[in-house]
Formats: sequence, C-alpha cells, structure tokens
Amino acid sequence: MGHELEQIIEACDAAIKNEDFDTLMSYYTEDAVLVVRPGTVARGKAEIEEAFIRIAKYFDNSIVPAQGKMEILEAGDTALVISQTLLESTVENPDVPMERKATYIFKKDASGKWLCAIDNSYGTDLI
Amino acid sequence: MGHELEQIIEACDAAIKNEDFDTLMSYYTEDAVLVVRPGTVARGKAEIEEAFIRIAKYFDNSIVPAQGKMEILEAGDTALVISQTLLESTVENPDVPMERKATYIFKKDASGKWLCAIDNSYGTDLI
Repeated sequence: MGHELEQIIEACDAAIKNEDFDTLMSYYTEDAVLVVRPGTVARGKAEIEEAFIRIAKYFDNSIVPAQGKMEILEAGDTALVISQTLLESTVENPDVPMERKATYIFKKDASGKWLCAIDNSYGTDLI
Repeated sequence: MGHELEQIIEACDAAIKNEDFDTLMSYYTEDAVLVVRPGTVARGKAEIEEAFIRIAKYFDNSIVPAQGKMEILEAGDTALVISQTLLESTVENPDVPMERKATYIFKKDASGKWLCAIDNSYGTDLI
C-alpha cells in the first residue's frame, strides 16, 4: 500500500466525482488514450476531457469511482496498474459494467511526475 | 492487422519456440519486467532470460506460443497490447493456464524500435 500511483489514482477518482476536469486532465499525457467503451477511444487531452464530461452527464452527475484490489508493475519510467474499478451512481441499470478490472498505463515525465498514457478501464474485456 | 507490434510479438513467439534467447531478449528494455507467474516477477534482461530458460525446461523444451485475438492501444511512444495468448506443449496437465488474456506494454526507443517493458501474460487475473 501507499504507492505514489495509488494516491494519484485516488486523486483522479476524486476529481471525476467532483467534476474537477482541470485537475483530472493534469494527470494525463498530451497524447493519452482513453477507452470510452469497447470500440470507442478518445485521443489527446481535449477529446478525453469531452469524454469525461459526457460520462458525467450520462451518470446524472452522480458518478463515484473507487478502486478495490490493485497490482502495480513498474519498469523504469513505465508502470502498468491493474485495478478493480468500482463505479457507483444514481442511474438505474446503466448499460456499462459498474465493476471492472482495469489496465492503466502510466509514464514518468522528465520531472518525475507520473502521467496516465493509456486509460483502459475495460482491461482484457476488449478481446 | 499488420501492426508492427503484431510482427514483433510473432517474432518473439518464434524465438521462444526455437529457444533463441538472444533474439528474444533483443525485444526487451534493459529494465523490463516479466510476470513469471502471479506473485513472481523477473526484473531486467538477465533475470528474464533465466526465467525463459526455466519455462522452456518446465515444458520439456516443447513450448509453442501463439496469439489469437489482439487489441493494440497506442499513445505516442507507449503501447498496450491486449492479446489472447495460446500455449501448446507436450507436457500433460501443466500447472499454469495455457490460454490467457495477456497485457504487454511496449515502448519506442530513441531509434523508433518497439521494446517490451512489461510482459504480463496473466493480464487482469493478477487481481
């Protein structure tokens, strides 16, 4: 417990809950990729922010993400986070899974800050 | 089809089958991480090569890896490959799964060559 990346992901979850998209986007690389749903990808900060705004709206501005079990594999300036992602909202019967095994890829930038390069909450369910 | 990374992974599978560990290791970063099995990780080229030699021995030098369905998510110099990995060998009832949904993280080096930084054939089954 207590890995820097756990704290960063916790900060991202709080930013999603609070719809604080400026803070949220500060944790992504310029050319990051977000899997919005299988087959739909947002590329770059502008598209990713738009996608998060649409996601917030879809969930009636009530989305609360949290992480359960987590494994972090670190190789130099690159890390793979495998995380049980739990979503809660007031929306009944959403058409997306609210419990997922996510894969998040982070990269350390020149100043040593971890940034998310690939945000795929669907994990291996893409295949 | 035909993504450069598909060809690289195919070349790695051939190198594993042929026990050509020099070629195999040329596709890894210096500080790469290999998940040997859940809870056991090899770090750096020397440990990864040793692990592959032990794996080859475990499978009576008959291991043949292949990939099925594959999704590649690319973000600048980083890529996440999600791949159905199929293992065959003459060993009966091996104590590891022979069909997996793997997560491979590749990075482009300064010369533009893709190298594997994190090799996790167990995918999200780690949690």
